[in-house]
Order: sequence, then structure tokens, then C-alpha cells
Amino acid sequence: MAKELKDLTKRADDYSQWYNELVVKADLAEQSPVRGCMVIKPYGYAIWEKMQQTLDKMFKETGVQNAYFPLLIPKSFLCREAEHVEGFAKECAVVTHYRLKNDPSGKGVIVDPDARLEEELIIRPTSETIIWGTYKNWIHSYRDLPLLINQWANVMRWEMRTRMFLRTAEFLWQEGHCAHATAEESEARTVQMINLYARFAEKYMAMPVIKGVKSANERFAGALNTYTIEAMMQDGKALQAGTSHNLGQNFAKAFDVTFVNKDNKPELVWANSWGVSTRLMGALIMTHSDDNGLVLPPHLAPIQVVIIPIYKNNEQRDQITAHIEPILVKLRELGISVKYDDADNRRPGFKFADYELKGVPVRLAIGARDIENGTVEVMRRDTLEKFEAPLEGIESRVRDLLEEIQENIFQKALTHRQEMTRTVDTYEEFKVEIEKGGFILAHWDGTEETEQKIKEETKATIRCIPLDGDTTPGVCMVTGKPSRQRVIFARNY
Amino acid sequence: MAKELKDLTKRADDYSQWYNELVVKADLAEQSPVRGCMVIKPYGYAIWEKMQQTLDKMFKETGVQNAYFPLLIPKSFLCREAEHVEGFAKECAVVTHYRLKNDPSGKGVIVDPDARLEEELIIRPTSETIIWGTYKNWIHSYRDLPLLINQWANVMRWEMRTRMFLRTAEFLWQEGHCAHATAEESEARTVQMINLYARFAEKYMAMPVIKGVKSANERFAGALNTYTIEAMMQDGKALQAGTSHNLGQNFAKAFDVTFVNKDNKPELVWANSWGVSTRLMGALIMTHSDDNGLVLPPHLAPIQVVIIPIYKNNEQRDQITAHIEPILVKLRELGISVKYDDADNRRPGFKFADYELKGVPVRLAIGARDIENGTVEVMRRDTLEKFEAPLEGIESRVRDLLEEIQENIFQKALTHRQEMTRTVDTYEEFKVEIEKGGFILAHWDGTEETEQKIKEETKATIRCIPLDGDTTPGVCMVTGKPSRQRVIFARNY
Repeated sequence: MAKELKDLTKRADDYSQWYNELVVKADLAEQSPVRGCMVIKPYGYAIWEKMQQTLDKMFKETGVQNAYFPLLIPKSFLCREAEHVEGFAKECAVVTHYRLKNDPSGKGVIVDPDARLEEELIIRPTSETIIWGTYKNWIHSYRDLPLLINQWANVMRWEMRTRMFLRTAEFLWQEGHCAHATAEESEARTVQMINLYARFAEKYMAMPVIKGVKSANERFAGALNTYTIEAMMQDGKALQAGTSHNLGQNFAKAFDVTFVNKDNKPELVWANSWGVSTRLMGALIMTHSDDNGLVLPPHLAPIQVVIIPIYKNNEQRDQITAHIEPILVKLRELGISVKYDDADNRRPGFKFADYELKGVPVRLAIGARDIENGTVEVMRRDTLEKFEAPLEGIESRVRDLLEEIQENIFQKALTHRQEMTRTVDTYEEFKVEIEKGGFILAHWDGTEETEQKIKEETKATIRCIPLDGDTTPGVCMVTGKPSRQRVIFARNY
Repeated sequence: MAKELKDLTKRADDYSQWYNELVVKADLAEQSPVRGCMVIKPYGYAIWEKMQQTLDKMFKETGVQNAYFPLLIPKSFLCREAEHVEGFAKECAVVTHYRLKNDPSGKGVIVDPDARLEEELIIRPTSETIIWGTYKNWIHSYRDLPLLINQWANVMRWEMRTRMFLRTAEFLWQEGHCAHATAEESEARTVQMINLYARFAEKYMAMPVIKGVKSANERFAGALNTYTIEAMMQDGKALQAGTSHNLGQNFAKAFDVTFVNKDNKPELVWANSWGVSTRLMGALIMTHSDDNGLVLPPHLAPIQVVIIPIYKNNEQRDQITAHIEPILVKLRELGISVKYDDADNRRPGFKFADYELKGVPVRLAIGARDIENGTVEVMRRDTLEKFEAPLEGIESRVRDLLEEIQENIFQKALTHRQEMTRTVDTYEEFKVEIEKGGFILAHWDGTEETEQKIKEETKATIRCIPLDGDTTPGVCMVTGKPSRQRVIFARNY
């Protein structure tokens, strides 16, 4: 592992290579033998589980319930909503048969041609169609509304170019699907969920995000409006970290989902959907980590503190362990996840490098001399600073330090984003600035043509029309036509 | 809902029909538009979540970590283990294409013939092959062992006859896959996990189970030995509720997974796998529920207590609410999940029937007179008994009652199983007794032929060779050949 750390490519040398190596070396994930699909390893999955648990609790606090809908969607369902099929039907895994049989040649098995499905089934790329096909039976009266449902599931999109966590053929996510009696309620829920995602990103991932609306071009297929949270990675590229879609009555129309209102009249139901995925793992890595490995926010770190005894013999080790045990109890009482690593088969230096690579926020090292002096060596992963602290009361010192680290890495990421965000007024300047990375605030005339032209000429897309901040009108940097407010351009993941 | 309850078929009239109706009426699940796949509704999913959380904690306490492996398995992987492919390759969903395109006729989309996969992919029916294909890269030295990994996932088996929860094409489960350095360690883990399942079934589901070993005929495809827990449903049929397989070195051989032992010599790794699924939901229903609906064990009930105010006007309701609020707080402090249902749009009688149907273990009803008297009406779902209790200290009374109900329904199920278990010595007697349902303890000569003959002639299978209980040898009831011990025969789900 020490060797592996030394081998980690530096961010300045090749950011993309650094990311790919770190995912593997920190034991987060690896490529599977199935094209474009990854294996999420236990350490990576433990971080994802913490994200899941936190989000799940936040969802439930807003009245959302979990359910589970089928993995497979009949092909005809995808076609019911015209825009949706354009967006999702093209690159997807298609189940055509339901049986294999022994190869008559005697070698292995082949697809049984007699077991062809009458209608092909698609592995869900997203579940609006199957869910709204089901809601038809669940919604009859205004009393059945709102219906606030989420599912944690795997989905599949046959991506041609994949990268672990960021873009994989199969990925894990949650998808919320709400049904409402009015347009206003549905819009309010759509906004509520993007606010919830922003809170999660900032408070738990320590990742500052900008809330905004997508341009028509970048909207979810079948939505009236897509809200997004956009984060800036260390290399200045944008990453879309979560979206919430106001679907209007499009899916209700497509699947004929109506309810009888209080005046006893039938009306179409209003819909929204919202999701985040294992992509957040990629965002987490590229927001905080460094050339020594992962840097994890304490609120999501599977191991928040590691304690490593430094000893020359078993007697010393036992003495240290006796001093550490009550501290382990106190740390756990404070709800802190701590690991005491007194394993014999690895040296302290090796352990230090390994836990640095894994991003454990706080490391305590303690030797025989420390015991005599009543001290411990503390290392914080975010700054790599080391200092000596009294053993007495170390548990509350650690608790405070974890919060300090959480706040510090958030501020660091925020400062980075601010430094990498510029306001630009001419297209000439834009072309120069976009090469330097980061977010560029510029005026745009609101047309797809202009957006497309900018994308083709600079590879930059409109990340969002921000909800907060400067809303002064101006003129489009490309066409000179009126612009309602500056929007955020960036190259993106 | 009151109407729906009245319509519930009685168990004595048609047990199978009662089950199917109850699953739907109690809002647990429903058929989806996709053949053989169900939708798990929020109330049903909430019970499954409680099962998941409990099991997940139990697994982790034994050192197991979660991970995630791909949904799709290359066809060739299935063929690597000869018995495994026989057992699983036949009825499975096969992905052959990765793209749809617009139908040239202008209507909808069709499978793009140019997007045919070079090698077909199978939706996992179980993940031994893909996981052992991955373990090859993870295991090199004895230091990498044991590897104790679990995944929560969806799997698919193309069943021809499906029933909600009991046998569906797609189902949710967990599958543990452990790798060990020695045969002894692997066997010990295999047994540890069946013991864990038995503890979960009895302590949380309140479902007595018999632990045993499967006959060769009923073994997992590719296993040396399969351990099982078998439960008896109310109709006397057996249900296999969980299995743990000692896979020997079969998968290590098939995927060439070796490790260097302490003597620096390469050895094949030893494997086991173990799983339970949403099938447990079916077992839960058929163990406890009655003609009034679900009966849920308090340890798994999403709502453990419901409190229903009985009022004539808003003033009365507010007065009751004021008295109930501190009780809600105290119940929640005890970790009890409580719902206060003061909804205006449903009458008390309707609510009573609904929560009975949903299996809520304890119901408190409280009216203006009760407030005056300092009393509350308590109803326990398991016996349907009603009694009056003092409001003062009701929270600890409820806590105790929940434990009492948990214990009572376990005892009831245990008594039922004992009454429906008989010892039989002749095949003539066996044929008579098997018609009455239940478990039959009989001697068997240990051969597949005899087992097969019994199955064909009586539809009974060997559920298991019990680990505990009478191990006196005897002679086979069919052939008169020697038998090591009595085994359990039953008809089964």
C-alpha cells in the first residue's frame, strides 16, 4: 500500500489519471468484467451507505415513503411519452429472450430461439414510465394525493465512454416520484427537493453547490423544467450532482392518470421526479482529495478516527491498549466511528500512509513515551498538520476537530470555486477564459441556437441559470440580443 | 377499506385465495404490468426495510461488509461451474442488444439489429460467478482471508408460475459470499449464518424454524452442502426461509482463485454463500395473519401502536389531543413507533378495521369519557382482546404488551407446528398423513431414487435432515434399508 501511494499520479500531472488511480488504490471501486459496469468495493460502498442513510432520513422527514418497482420495462411503455422515448430509448439494455439451452455442439449454452419474448423488455434507465403506469391504479381521488414515493435502485444506460462512478452503464441511485393535485404543489415539491439536495451536498459532502434551472437543451426528457445543483471540481470542471424535474402533466397524460377533485371533476395529476446517484462518489473524490489520496468529510467517513499504537514489544502494546480502551468507549459514546489498529503485521509508517490514502479524517498515534507524558500525536488529514495533545479530554478535542475539518474542507472548496468563477462580457474573452477552466458568468439570449454554437465552438455548456445571485439583465455575449440574467457556463463531467 | 376487509376470503374457505387477497388489500404489493414481477408498495416495503436493517446489523456484527457487484453476467461465466449452469442458466432473462431505434414504419421503437452484443448478458439469478470472477483479483495471500462480503440486490429467475413474494421473476434479497483459507473455517461460517437466520426468524419474525441440511436433490447448484431453515405455514405446508451453502472449492476451481498460505504454497480458496429474500414477507404473512387481516410481530411492524381519538366535535378532539401528546413523546422515547390518527375524513370504525387489516399490534382508542376517567381502551391485534387501562403509565404498559404479543404469536406458531408434526413409520401411514398437511418425521434410506419416488407419489419433498432432535437410526419406510435418522417430509411452497 505504501508503494501504491507513492505511485499515485499527481493531480497537476494528469488529473484524470489521478482520479482513475485513486478510485482503485483507495479501494473504492474497480472495473468489472462486464463492459462499463463497476464493482463497488466494501470501502467505497460504506461511504455510499452513509450517503444513503442520510438522504433516506432527510426524505422521510418530508413525508416520502420508499417502495420498489420492477427492473424491467415493456418497450411500449417507453414510447408513451414522446420526448421521454427520444431521451432514453436509444442506448439501453434490451432483454429479448428468457431461456438458455445447452449448445447442441456440446459446448456451453446458447440462447434458446424458442424463448423469444413477445414484447422486448428494457432494463430501466429511469422509472417514470413503469411508475406512472402503476400510479394509474393508485390515484382516484384528491384524497389519494399527494403521493410521495422514492425507490433506491439500480438503473442502466448503455454509455459508450464510461468512468467509474461518473458515468457507468449500471449505476445505483434513488429516484423520487411524486404526484400532486395542483401545479403549484408539484412545483413546490420540485424546489423543496433541490433545496434538500443542496443541503445534503453542503452539510454532509462539504461540497458547495449552485442551485439553478437547466436550459431547455439540458432538460430531462419529458420535463417542463429541470432544477439542478452544480458543483465545481478541483480541475475547474462542473459536475451535475443532483436534479429535480417538474414533469407537469406529461406523464399523467401519457398514462391516463386522473383524479376526481373536491368539486367531483376529473383532472390530470401533476408530477415531479428527482434523483441523485453513485455519481456523488465521484464528486466527493474530486472536491476534496489530494496527491496523498482521499480526503473524506467527517460526516461521511466510514472511519472518522484511527488510533495507531507505536510499540517495541508486546508489553508496551498492552500498556498502550489499556490506556486507549476507555478512550475508545468515550469516542463511541459521542457517536464517533473509531478504529484501533494494533495489527502486528504492518508497521506504523505503512499504516499511516494507508489511512491517509483512505482519507480517514483524524489519526491519533500513541507510544510508550506519550503514555508517560499523558499526550497523543494528532494528525488531521485535510491539512496534514500534526500536533501534540493531552490524552485527558482527547475525545472532545477529536469531536471538535472533526467539525473543524468538516467546515474547513467546505470553506476550501468554496474559496476554490469563488476564485475559479469569473464574469465575462464578450465572446472573445469567453473563449480565452473557458480554456482556464472554472465557471463563467455570462449573458445569453435564451436560444438553443446560441447555446449550441457556444458548445460546438468552446465545448462549454450552460450548467444552469442560477436561482440566487445577480439577476441584472444585459445583452448576450454572442448575439447582442437581450438577456434576462447571467448564466453559468463551464466544461463539465 | 372496511368494505375490502369484509370481502377478505376466509382462510378455511381458500387459503391460497386469502393470501393473494391479503397481500393486495393490506397494501403490501401488487402485480405489475411486467409478467411475474411485482410492485412492492410503501407499507410492504416498510416491513422489508425493517427486516433489512435488522439483518444488516446482525451481519455486520459478525464482521461482514457490504459491496455491490454488476447486475449483468456474461453468459460464459455461468458455464464455468458445471452444476451451477445446470441449475441457473435455463430460465433467465437474456440481454442480447444494447440499442433501440425508431421503427421505420413511424410507430414507436424497435430493437436495432446492428446493436447486437457479441456475448449475451444474463440478469443475475445469483452472483457466485461474477463475484468469484472478481475475487480472483482480490485474493492473493492468506492475509487477504477471510473475505466476508454481502450485497443487497435484485435478482431474476424466469419462473413460469409466480405468486407475490413467494415466487416472482424479480425479487429482492441479500447474498453473502465468503472466502476462507480452510475448509473448517468455511464450514463454521456456513453454520454461523444459518444460525443467524434462525435467530432472526424466531426473534424478529416470531416464526419458529427447523434448522437442517438439504438432501442432495434439493441442494444449491454447485454446493457441497446446503443448510436451510424451514418454517411451517398455517396451512401445514413448509416454506424454505433461508439457506446457507458450503461451496467447497468448486467456485475457486472454476474461477482459478488461489492464495499463498503461511508456508508460501498456493492453495484453492474455500467458499460459502447464504441468502434470504423478499420471500420472507410471504412467510411472515402465512405464519401469523388471520381472517381479519395481517398480524405483524411488534419487532417488525412499521407502526407498533396506533392511537385513535373518539370525538364528537373539534373541542373534544383538541382536549384529547392535549392529553395524548405527552404520551406520544414518552412512547417515542421508549423507541416505540406510534401513529396518532385524528384524521377527520374517516370514522373510528373504519380506522379500526383498517389498522386491523394492516396488522398494527396495539390500538389505543380514547374518548372524552376516558379523559374524565383517566383511562384508555387497549386492543391487541393478536388475540383481538380489548381491555381498559389507566392512562397513567400507559407507555410502559404498551411496551410490555408489545413484548407479550411478540412472545405470544411465536408460541402460537410453535404450538401449531408441534401439533402438525407427526412421526410415521410406514409408507402406507405416510400417504394418509401427508394429505393432512404438516411435517412428517420418517426414516429414509438416503438415496435420490427413494426421495424421487416419494415426491412423485405424494408430492412431498424432504425439507431437511434436522440438525437438532432425535438422531436414532432406523429403517427406510419405503425400502426398508438402513436410515441414519428421521428426516422431515412435507409439501412445500
